[in-house]
Amino acid sequence: MSRPVTLFTGQWADLPFTEMSQMTKDFGYDGIELACWGDHFDVKQALEDDNYCKEKRAALDQLGLQCHAISAHLAGQAVLDNIDSRHQAILPDYVWGDGDPAGVNARAAEELMNSARAAQKFNVEVVNGFTGSSIWHLLYSFPPVPPSMIDAGFDLLAERFNPILDVFGECGVKFALEVHPTEIAFDIHSAHRALEVLEHRPEFGFNFDPSHLIWQGIDPVQFIREFPDRIFHVHIKDASVTLDGRSGINCSHLNFGDPRRGWDFRSPGRGDVDFEEIIRALNVIGYTGPLSIEWEDSGMERTFGATEACEFTKKLDFAPSNVAFDAAFDDKN
Amino acid sequence: MSRPVTLFTGQWADLPFTEMSQMTKDFGYDGIELACWGDHFDVKQALEDDNYCKEKRAALDQLGLQCHAISAHLAGQAVLDNIDSRHQAILPDYVWGDGDPAGVNARAAEELMNSARAAQKFNVEVVNGFTGSSIWHLLYSFPPVPPSMIDAGFDLLAERFNPILDVFGECGVKFALEVHPTEIAFDIHSAHRALEVLEHRPEFGFNFDPSHLIWQGIDPVQFIREFPDRIFHVHIKDASVTLDGRSGINCSHLNFGDPRRGWDFRSPGRGDVDFEEIIRALNVIGYTGPLSIEWEDSGMERTFGATEACEFTKKLDFAPSNVAFDAAFDDKN
Amino acid sequence: MSRPVTLFTGQWADLPFTEMSQMTKDFGYDGIELACWGDHFDVKQALEDDNYCKEKRAALDQLGLQCHAISAHLAGQAVLDNIDSRHQAILPDYVWGDGDPAGVNARAAEELMNSARAAQKFNVEVVNGFTGSSIWHLLYSFPPVPPSMIDAGFDLLAERFNPILDVFGECGVKFALEVHPTEIAFDIHSAHRALEVLEHRPEFGFNFDPSHLIWQGIDPVQFIREFPDRIFHVHIKDASVTLDGRSGINCSHLNFGDPRRGWDFRSPGRGDVDFEEIIRALNVIGYTGPLSIEWEDSGMERTFGATEACEFTKKLDFAPSNVAFDAAFDDKN
Amino acid sequence: MSRPVTLFTGQWADLPFTEMSQMTKDFGYDGIELACWGDHFDVKQALEDDNYCKEKRAALDQLGLQCHAISAHLAGQAVLDNIDSRHQAILPDYVWGDGDPAGVNARAAEELMNSARAAQKFNVEVVNGFTGSSIWHLLYSFPPVPPSMIDAGFDLLAERFNPILDVFGECGVKFALEVHPTEIAFDIHSAHRALEVLEHRPEFGFNFDPSHLIWQGIDPVQFIREFPDRIFHVHIKDASVTLDGRSGINCSHLNFGDPRRGWDFRSPGRGDVDFEEIIRALNVIGYTGPLSIEWEDSGMERTFGATEACEFTKKLDFAPSNVAFDAAFDDKN
Amino acid sequence: MSRPVTLFTGQWADLPFTEMSQMTKDFGYDGIELACWGDHFDVKQALEDDNYCKEKRAALDQLGLQCHAISAHLAGQAVLDNIDSRHQAILPDYVWGDGDPAGVNARAAEELMNSARAAQKFNVEVVNGFTGSSIWHLLYSFPPVPPSMIDAGFDLLAERFNPILDVFGECGVKFALEVHPTEIAFDIHSAHRALEVLEHRPEFGFNFDPSHLIWQGIDPVQFIREFPDRIFHVHIKDASVTLDGRSGINCSHLNFGDPRRGWDFRSPGRGDVDFEEIIRALNVIGYTGPLSIEWEDSGMERTFGATEACEFTKKLDFAPSNVAFDAAFDDKN
Amino acid sequence: MSRPVTLFTGQWADLPFTEMSQMTKDFGYDGIELACWGDHFDVKQALEDDNYCKEKRAALDQLGLQCHAISAHLAGQAVLDNIDSRHQAILPDYVWGDGDPAGVNARAAEELMNSARAAQKFNVEVVNGFTGSSIWHLLYSFPPVPPSMIDAGFDLLAERFNPILDVFGECGVKFALEVHPTEIAFDIHSAHRALEVLEHRPEFGFNFDPSHLIWQGIDPVQFIREFPDRIFHVHIKDASVTLDGRSGINCSHLNFGDPRRGWDFRSPGRGDVDFEEIIRALNVIGYTGPLSIEWEDSGMERTFGATEACEFTKKLDFAPSNVAFDAAFDDKN
Repeated sequence: MSRPVTLFTGQWADLPFTEMSQMTKDFGYDGIELACWGDHFDVKQALEDDNYCKEKRAALDQLGLQCHAISAHLAGQAVLDNIDSRHQAILPDYVWGDGDPAGVNARAAEELMNSARAAQKFNVEVVNGFTGSSIWHLLYSFPPVPPSMIDAGFDLLAERFNPILDVFGECGVKFALEVHPTEIAFDIHSAHRALEVLEHRPEFGFNFDPSHLIWQGIDPVQFIREFPDRIFHVHIKDASVTLDGRSGINCSHLNFGDPRRGWDFRSPGRGDVDFEEIIRALNVIGYTGPLSIEWEDSGMERTFGATEACEFTKKLDFAPSNVAFDAAFDDKN
Repeated sequence: MSRPVTLFTGQWADLPFTEMSQMTKDFGYDGIELACWGDHFDVKQALEDDNYCKEKRAALDQLGLQCHAISAHLAGQAVLDNIDSRHQAILPDYVWGDGDPAGVNARAAEELMNSARAAQKFNVEVVNGFTGSSIWHLLYSFPPVPPSMIDAGFDLLAERFNPILDVFGECGVKFALEVHPTEIAFDIHSAHRALEVLEHRPEFGFNFDPSHLIWQGIDPVQFIREFPDRIFHVHIKDASVTLDGRSGINCSHLNFGDPRRGWDFRSPGRGDVDFEEIIRALNVIGYTGPLSIEWEDSGMERTFGATEACEFTKKLDFAPSNVAFDAAFDDKN
Repeated sequence: MSRPVTLFTGQWADLPFTEMSQMTKDFGYDGIELACWGDHFDVKQALEDDNYCKEKRAALDQLGLQCHAISAHLAGQAVLDNIDSRHQAILPDYVWGDGDPAGVNARAAEELMNSARAAQKFNVEVVNGFTGSSIWHLLYSFPPVPPSMIDAGFDLLAERFNPILDVFGECGVKFALEVHPTEIAFDIHSAHRALEVLEHRPEFGFNFDPSHLIWQGIDPVQFIREFPDRIFHVHIKDASVTLDGRSGINCSHLNFGDPRRGWDFRSPGRGDVDFEEIIRALNVIGYTGPLSIEWEDSGMERTFGATEACEFTKKLDFAPSNVAFDAAFDDKN
Repeated sequence: MSRPVTLFTGQWADLPFTEMSQMTKDFGYDGIELACWGDHFDVKQALEDDNYCKEKRAALDQLGLQCHAISAHLAGQAVLDNIDSRHQAILPDYVWGDGDPAGVNARAAEELMNSARAAQKFNVEVVNGFTGSSIWHLLYSFPPVPPSMIDAGFDLLAERFNPILDVFGECGVKFALEVHPTEIAFDIHSAHRALEVLEHRPEFGFNFDPSHLIWQGIDPVQFIREFPDRIFHVHIKDASVTLDGRSGINCSHLNFGDPRRGWDFRSPGRGDVDFEEIIRALNVIGYTGPLSIEWEDSGMERTFGATEACEFTKKLDFAPSNVAFDAAFDDKN
Repeated sequence: MSRPVTLFTGQWADLPFTEMSQMTKDFGYDGIELACWGDHFDVKQALEDDNYCKEKRAALDQLGLQCHAISAHLAGQAVLDNIDSRHQAILPDYVWGDGDPAGVNARAAEELMNSARAAQKFNVEVVNGFTGSSIWHLLYSFPPVPPSMIDAGFDLLAERFNPILDVFGECGVKFALEVHPTEIAFDIHSAHRALEVLEHRPEFGFNFDPSHLIWQGIDPVQFIREFPDRIFHVHIKDASVTLDGRSGINCSHLNFGDPRRGWDFRSPGRGDVDFEEIIRALNVIGYTGPLSIEWEDSGMERTFGATEACEFTKKLDFAPSNVAFDAAFDDKN
Repeated sequence: MSRPVTLFTGQWADLPFTEMSQMTKDFGYDGIELACWGDHFDVKQALEDDNYCKEKRAALDQLGLQCHAISAHLAGQAVLDNIDSRHQAILPDYVWGDGDPAGVNARAAEELMNSARAAQKFNVEVVNGFTGSSIWHLLYSFPPVPPSMIDAGFDLLAERFNPILDVFGECGVKFALEVHPTEIAFDIHSAHRALEVLEHRPEFGFNFDPSHLIWQGIDPVQFIREFPDRIFHVHIKDASVTLDGRSGINCSHLNFGDPRRGWDFRSPGRGDVDFEEIIRALNVIGYTGPLSIEWEDSGMERTFGATEACEFTKKLDFAPSNVAFDAAFDDKN
């Protein structure tokens, strides 16, 4: 009756699939959300090799691990981004190619389409991912940003993602954007605008992740209430705001894990996210998909953390009521 | 005994100097901080025309207006920024030129050097300004930003600003960076790093402006305490955090004035800045320069606001104690 | 350019109109909102005596007092309320009659229609008022309240107010419900339901009064944002939450002014209402009507308070911006 | 040494006693607080059938379940309430009768007396219950409520409950009013007044339940400190304040479970009640009775919740210190 | 109708009476509270020289300054304190004498009795002052403090102050202890104990000063409510808690004015005291005496501050209501 | 990999070592921090009897209990304190002697030196303890405290502790002052001054205990960050601030456990200390020593508490990360 608790493998891509899936089982998870990088889920092979998906699924079945979604964050990021050297580090060689920005954008879009085709073959209904953004660097409006530059960024979303979403539609797979800084949608109002420019087409929704909202001052529950029919997938990830008068919310170009930052990611339950209210809100909208832990905490050993996070999430989840309370009072005779 | 209250003309550049200076007087100000754009203070003319500074000063004297600083934010912004079309709108034609980025950077650096020379001629000791930043777009570390990319941004500060600061040194003028998003230093820790990379040379300090700190979660008083010998100038500007669960601190690519934003600028005294504590901290470090109002409030008519802000700031300021309290108890006979 | 500041006479009905209007002028107000009780504005006479409105208006004109609204709170209260002895104290004899509840309800409805007719004659566009509520006593759902009982309360609003609002429509006058405990709408969600059941007919809107919202935990600014086209009139009234661990928000059946209460009304500016944000929200929706002070503070002498409140409100109000700030930066040459 | 943890059956009256008591055992409880409705504890049969109490007790003994109190909330509610159709749903037919209000009030009073007699036979020392209130609908003083109307409500408490409490005294049983909205006492100050009007007679005290206090802004610990000798019984029930700027504390006539409400009941430990401080305060006053869980949470499946609540409460409880700490330092040799 | 605003001269004892009284007038005060040190009010002369009080009063009358209280803080401090070198600095030579502790205590007690006699001659009804404390150094119970040591401290209060208060009684003068650290009563519970040990004799009450309570975490309004008949005099003094994570409330042995402290005194209105609520509480208990400013702010020039404080306090004060609000609604005809 | 969890026996000195060590084992601890009083660790015997340390260690080994530190709080307290009758209760007879203050101070210093020698024999590297303070009673600067009196207190620290620390140096043992009220260092700024006056000699550091900081308004994490190389030992002890408007932070001379106090100690996890952040800060500075529970909670039975505290602390601790997260993203092929 409760939701499956899965582990997203994105932060474990240094480990091979075999080891990672066994560890996921050992940590106590019900399932796994495979990243489309490392050898966790190889989109190219999935399309080229007819046995790939079957064997991958069989391996998971043998461990008793469910898989409800694959994740194509890295390819997605390169669809709208202004490409620079950082992208080479996160893309497969055949997508990066010669690194010419327009070519990278195009190949990343193709890769994302292929992730939908692979998802169909692998029999999962959701591909989680990023979109990137051509206007993220305009976040703060100085030098003054004319509205037309912002409009152009959202128009580009429509231009590049409509063809991609067409493929998703054909495959019967949904694309769940993880609302996140550096993406076209990074908060509630920008998420609304993304939906509007895509004319609310049914293939496009969100991978809800509260950790990216909380430090921006956004109530994650409000996000769920704003988009009840667009929560396609859920990440359980926590973050803590550690402002102390001297640190800043924009974090001084300091990397994750530096104690001088104004916020950082945390193992679930050890940050500021109120997961209780999130479960209740998910119950209200009727979300029945996985609770997928994206584990990231620069201050904690990760196998300890992934185990604890699994227990935490299983304890957290509960089913909604099936009884109207006042009814009991009426049975008075 | 109290500090002069001046008005920064940057947001009034649509008005000619003559009208602006008269209004400043009429609003009740003690002085004016002239922007190096519009016709408020023309760096080029100041250097080319030996009478320019004298006539400008005479015009101010006639109105009884002091001038302690000029401001070169726009040229400064173009020194380190990655140049795009937005810069054309904020730069004079002779700096923009053909718009080739490297050329714009170089001409902006030259313009900033000239602002120091002009300041010397105009007999002001401080040029306020921006630096721009070649790494602002890397604010959020995804795709993962290798430390070397951040290092390169600060190295560029040293490379391009050391020659500029040499000119400031020769002119006996200080450069006061307004710590602000999109600049190389936008919070306390990045301000420390900027000072370090410039080896704390004495020509480089800050134009303290609490409005850019408060919404980042930084206590402006802590900024003053961290850099007691580097507060070269002070802007009185307010901001209000208007988070309501749905708005976000990164403001959804919405322009200033949009009520859906998570924060916005405010007329002094109508936001979240605790100016009382700022005055006390300035008293502690012995700052005796002007309190210069940078007036910006998208929700208020500006002549009303500038008048109110002047009254507010004059009432706010007070002198530190010159008596030790316990001493009085001792005079008991 | 700023909004007229008026004084609502409801709490001053122990004073005759002549004295009250002179005091209002002396306190410094721009205008007056006349209560339809005492002799401040006599609906019956206004309809029966063709000179009544003219003379009343002339008396105000002589004092230089504007009048933008009349208020029929007491008659309105008796339209939906379950009538008991308390209503006799607040109703004219000809409305109370024999006190038979159904008759009182009917005569109160007729009186409210007449207030619209009188408003038309007196040339004001808004009648502020209450509706009463047949379901207020069901506020807390124990014994369990079946939804049908709540439905019936809102249906009764439609049944009784549609004919009333027809008269308002004919007269070109609007009815502004002061959202308030004991009325059919007392918070945001009940206000939505009231509008729905009345099918959003244009004659029905709200007299916004933050003092009734703040102690309920509602952000008054949110009310303005929810109903931008329904704010027909604004009351400036303050309240303070004085919970101290022992007092309760429901106030223990203790009367206003008792220090053991959990909240109480306050002279404007001395309570918890953030009027700054309210003015900004009213600027955003384009409200240009009066700011009408409903002065009530059980702990303060009322003539002192009404004077102070007028000054406070005049200082509070300000006009929205008529300049786009970024524009100024563009005039750089 | 720790207190027994019991389950109140009021919200489970749709289940027969046999099933309910077995479930209570299976959930892990030490005992049960039987509601005097459904077939959980039938006051009428208890008085008419000499074996009823013995058999009921034997059934509980067989399960190893303690029973320290029975609860007569529904009959009690009808003693002071102004009767309407809602009461028919919560009263046995022989109390409701023809539904004539005066008759219902009288028969409810008789039923409450009988609950004391039954308690004596069943060998429990406390009957928990409600009183109802004839003045609850006057909660908000508009139309203005003269003090005499409030006085009358409390006088009625004395008039109707003194005879009832006489019976309790004869039976050696205490009546514990659950301080709760719609009762004559719903917060600290009204509880004081109830005690005063009953002249602090020893049969009358309180069933402490923090869930009804917390959303009123009252600190439950203060309640315990105010009435140390009147805490006859304790309910463990939680509530969460969910105000978000748009919802209101009076909840818009929305039923429990609606996410638009400003507060709602919660499974213990998942709301705002600080049970740690409550246990400490109960330790200070020397309360040794049961901690009885009144489980109600519209967002959670109830068997899951009742199990979790039992574990939570057992973990929560602890014994007070029996050592003076400083003493240990003195044994220094 | 409003209360007189007076200035306490304790912190101005470096200035002679003539200059101080003229300044007090010039600052805008209605009156003066004379310190019994410096030459402001010389207790010895007042008793020895029959013209002293007359001439002092005449000098004040000529300036139009009221005087409602004299203050004997320093002598009072030496009555219960364990005497050390610090007391020499605050006592007149004839009280300090040879500095032998027992002798100093005795002479200080005699001086305090004389202050009552002088007050009678000077025709003021209240002497404000301190008591000192023999147990202040036991504030933190380590090494463990046996209760008997605390008892002894309060017993000493009774032993030494009962004879003093006898003289106050004979003179018809009240002693108002300023509840303050280093005194026998420094918070609400210790004030209760002081009253108890003195058996609530009518000559002993308090000089209410919120600045000593606020940083201890005590709500000054609660102090007024606890002791409604013992507020003999009121000091208007403010304090600000400046905890920032590194500073501590016990202030690290750092002197007033050091920015590293966790709290400090502030000019009225510039600290954390909510004077609005204090005025309301004083209105409720019917206090009609002076509001006497004890001005102390290590960060502000004192003549500026004393002037501002006078304006602030005059604006702050207001009379309570003389109208019942609901009454107005009843005059409906 | 995780830190040993030990129990400090100071509050259990009423129990003999044999019983105490067995209980410590039974409670689940990894080790024990022995108090140098009772018979837990007898400094005198340790020096006089060559077998004492061996036997003590053997007894612990047999139970599998580690011991990393001994604690000499009581002797240390008497080194700087102004001696009074309270010290007799906490000192061994041979230290108290005739009670002459100078003699007690001298013998206490000798005892503290001996504790270092005993620690060396017992093979532990840290002696935790107090210093006492000759200036604690001057905490609040009234009568005004001249800076020279404070200086003298810190000078005395140097004078008396330098010889003691010489012995510690010779023995290769560190002295860890528990920063605590009544000690020379009781907060961050006084701890800095203590280090300065001792010229940062390496034998002197701190036994970090958050319970003494939290109620002073100090962030314990800031303490760790200020003194990263001086955290020689860690106490896990909690405290709760229970201010309610009437209680005060200085606690009214009321003993621990009195509910009228403004703060009190709590069993770990039941107070206000944020241990999560403390563990993370300890991870950052690389502290690898024990987490030693000093259990004190006047409201809880101590064996229950000590057991719970052990579980809490073991669950709390975790190892820092050994993987850079971004690294995983790079392994994309």
